[in-house]
Amino acid sequence: MTSNTVRVPTGREAGRSVDLNADLGEGVGDDEAMLAIVTSANVACGFHAGTPAELRATCRGAAVSGVRVGAQVSYPDRSGFGRRFMDIAPAELTADILYQIGALQGLARSVGVEVTYVKPHGALYNSIVHHTRQADAVIDALREIGATLPLMGLAGSPVLHRARDAGLPVIAEAFADRAYTPEATLVPRTEPGAVLTDSGEIAQRVVRLVSEGTVVAVDGSVLRIDAESICLHGDTPGAIGHAREVREALQLSGIRVTAAS
Amino acid sequence: MTSNTVRVPTGREAGRSVDLNADLGEGVGDDEAMLAIVTSANVACGFHAGTPAELRATCRGAAVSGVRVGAQVSYPDRSGFGRRFMDIAPAELTADILYQIGALQGLARSVGVEVTYVKPHGALYNSIVHHTRQADAVIDALREIGATLPLMGLAGSPVLHRARDAGLPVIAEAFADRAYTPEATLVPRTEPGAVLTDSGEIAQRVVRLVSEGTVVAVDGSVLRIDAESICLHGDTPGAIGHAREVREALQLSGIRVTAAS
Amino acid sequence: MTSNTVRVPTGREAGRSVDLNADLGEGVGDDEAMLAIVTSANVACGFHAGTPAELRATCRGAAVSGVRVGAQVSYPDRSGFGRRFMDIAPAELTADILYQIGALQGLARSVGVEVTYVKPHGALYNSIVHHTRQADAVIDALREIGATLPLMGLAGSPVLHRARDAGLPVIAEAFADRAYTPEATLVPRTEPGAVLTDSGEIAQRVVRLVSEGTVVAVDGSVLRIDAESICLHGDTPGAIGHAREVREALQLSGIRVTAAS
Amino acid sequence: MTSNTVRVPTGREAGRSVDLNADLGEGVGDDEAMLAIVTSANVACGFHAGTPAELRATCRGAAVSGVRVGAQVSYPDRSGFGRRFMDIAPAELTADILYQIGALQGLARSVGVEVTYVKPHGALYNSIVHHTRQADAVIDALREIGATLPLMGLAGSPVLHRARDAGLPVIAEAFADRAYTPEATLVPRTEPGAVLTDSGEIAQRVVRLVSEGTVVAVDGSVLRIDAESICLHGDTPGAIGHAREVREALQLSGIRVTAAS
Repeated sequence: MTSNTVRVPTGREAGRSVDLNADLGEGVGDDEAMLAIVTSANVACGFHAGTPAELRATCRGAAVSGVRVGAQVSYPDRSGFGRRFMDIAPAELTADILYQIGALQGLARSVGVEVTYVKPHGALYNSIVHHTRQADAVIDALREIGATLPLMGLAGSPVLHRARDAGLPVIAEAFADRAYTPEATLVPRTEPGAVLTDSGEIAQRVVRLVSEGTVVAVDGSVLRIDAESICLHGDTPGAIGHAREVREALQLSGIRVTAAS
Repeated sequence: MTSNTVRVPTGREAGRSVDLNADLGEGVGDDEAMLAIVTSANVACGFHAGTPAELRATCRGAAVSGVRVGAQVSYPDRSGFGRRFMDIAPAELTADILYQIGALQGLARSVGVEVTYVKPHGALYNSIVHHTRQADAVIDALREIGATLPLMGLAGSPVLHRARDAGLPVIAEAFADRAYTPEATLVPRTEPGAVLTDSGEIAQRVVRLVSEGTVVAVDGSVLRIDAESICLHGDTPGAIGHAREVREALQLSGIRVTAAS
Repeated sequence: MTSNTVRVPTGREAGRSVDLNADLGEGVGDDEAMLAIVTSANVACGFHAGTPAELRATCRGAAVSGVRVGAQVSYPDRSGFGRRFMDIAPAELTADILYQIGALQGLARSVGVEVTYVKPHGALYNSIVHHTRQADAVIDALREIGATLPLMGLAGSPVLHRARDAGLPVIAEAFADRAYTPEATLVPRTEPGAVLTDSGEIAQRVVRLVSEGTVVAVDGSVLRIDAESICLHGDTPGAIGHAREVREALQLSGIRVTAAS
Repeated sequence: MTSNTVRVPTGREAGRSVDLNADLGEGVGDDEAMLAIVTSANVACGFHAGTPAELRATCRGAAVSGVRVGAQVSYPDRSGFGRRFMDIAPAELTADILYQIGALQGLARSVGVEVTYVKPHGALYNSIVHHTRQADAVIDALREIGATLPLMGLAGSPVLHRARDAGLPVIAEAFADRAYTPEATLVPRTEPGAVLTDSGEIAQRVVRLVSEGTVVAVDGSVLRIDAESICLHGDTPGAIGHAREVREALQLSGIRVTAAS
């Protein structure tokens, strides 16, 4: 039994509700359409994408749609869209995270919403899974920001355990359109079959994931994954169609789509 | 009687106490020495100077020294150190200001201090004196940031009246080492005699300004200036010496140096 | 007879050929489609848009399509897409322009093409029409870059005269889809009718402009405009369709579309 | 016998002349004083430090002093001063290097000098020693820039061999004030004794290094190091004093200080 199979009790009644999250405010994809589907918006903070005016507009859109706002924090890598690992010292990374969360809080509050969670973006999302010094730098930022902000991350990943051990709330997420290895990690995008493209298949995987807490890995094995939120992509071909089908399939299965835990 | 001569009642007992402020965290000057002299630190927010780690260290230094922290907001002009006017649309400028204040709030809170006022930097400081659309954009940001943050600006300038009319608290400041025109504006730096260089003269001007509320303009006329804070420069030749002499002269005159109003 | 009516002899046989230019490499619009239509690509230089890898790819695309490359230089205003006037001192602006041209030359040469002209972007394009100190700063950069690079600008505008007087070659351009005032300036985008949207009308205006050297202003008066190049937009609704129709109409009228002057 | 001991024939008469290089234009240290001492200026290109106007002024200073100009290229990491490893894909890194060299060429040419070599800065300098994909990305840029620009790097390091194998000229450099391991690598700055601080000792090491081609490592062993250039630091305490003493000691020993190879 690996770490990802340990069920952590959450406020949710398992299998009865789920949160849907997507990246917004990056200047790609159809934000308006996604805001009608998701319940959580991962809003960029200017380090990988977005100007203050754009990010504020995204927060306003989320507020109008009743979608909660999370801070999607990144390495300071604008030209690389935050997709490149940076060997940043922990104290510098902590300050970068604090700066970004604070900046989005300033914008969000001005339009009447609060930042309610933090989701690392791109290379930072992946690196903190195993890079413990950077993971702790992110966790330090969340402990010192002066608000209780859950860390959203990959269900079953060590960084979520580390965050919980540090006393932080977490939001475990799974991916709607990504294939899983038998070890419950994501199949790298460079491998064939890493990204699912059939709307129906994607929707049925999500329903099973939420209602049974299981997903079928690429080798056919069945993984237990306890996810409170499902990440939808907004910038891939057919993204809006996939997202709509996921939401409809969940509702047909009697599963409430809500950010409330 | 011009606008700058109208005394606005403040919480201070006139002539008995004054605040000393200086720009810190810009990577120039001796921040440590200044923190032992001033009572208010104008901390850059990353748009004209400073990395998050540097700005956080400056906030920590201020916290340790018991110096209050203000957000020194700027145009997004890193390569020009915020010294160049930018014709930014009000909605974009408001978002830029919100972003910067929020970012510094995030850093400051993490080291146990709050941002307690906002002082525009460089070209923005000067432009909002007369550029009413940009002035209102800054005022809008302060009204929407979700905290009561006074606007620090030039004593007697129209922007402070505009801020007060919008219901915002303000902090009127005067400059220790700058010559004044008969109209109570600063003599441009490009003119001879614009910057005073004699420590003794600077100190005596500040004492008179605080105790009597007057300053002698370049034409010899006596101006009434009601300033709650005096701006000291930290990055000019002899800056630390001037600053020390100002503080000593104030204390010898029985004037308390304090940020408390 | 105003300045814009003075015909300046060019290498072209008037009315027999014309250059078509468009902005590319900004991450908006369909670059590939435009490369099949235009003969000159205004390539961003990183100050308002584009990463080095993106800009290099755009140069490579232009090289493959046999389209000449121009440097689209901008104010250092990434967050504003170069659309906001900046009050930059001439020496700083000259250095900014030299830096951008050099950077694009480095990228272009590596894929086998040369930068062959310079076109200011956005707010800089508009400001140098009347702001003579900034115009001279741009002209200074072109005189000092160590290559003969014509300045592309609005046909009839004072900056082109200024550039010619300084010994620089120029490329006068007109706009395919913009309405003209009786003074041969563009109707501001904020006014109704500023942008033409009918492909047929746009195409016929361009044919007339090239073959007769005239355009009908908003008040019905006929302006003489001597343009060697026509600017097509690639990022507006229907842009590609307009561009194709312009090219076809020119060719049907026996006008060669070529960058060769 | 390790790779660093292989003497590569150079144009210099061994032991009779040497180049002295230092980083300039980073906004730290006394550039003017260093320009009177060194023969090669490593000029930042804006990715880790410097504005175009500052970099141009540095090039002009070098031109006036008869000091040759090299492009000090960096990761795109302004907030980290280029000191943090970035996992950039080779194609992106190549474009970043081309962009920076081109930009500095534009600035340098405008003041009458040419960029004559390239020296990677900070984390990039160190990473390409062993990171062969990034080393090749830098080498690719130098092969494609359209000018013959030697790569300056650590004497004896694999990246210089790799560059030579690719047909590029190189400039092998040694460090005046850094301790060497028995493997001819630099003792990391985090270890005690990594940086030498006695001017006399530094000067004598450099004289020996140039005249005999040897340096004593921390364990007392004698290393053969074939360096054409010696790197002086301009931003450490006593830097100018060390640099002057090195130059004087070389001249007293009859060694010419020159960039000419």
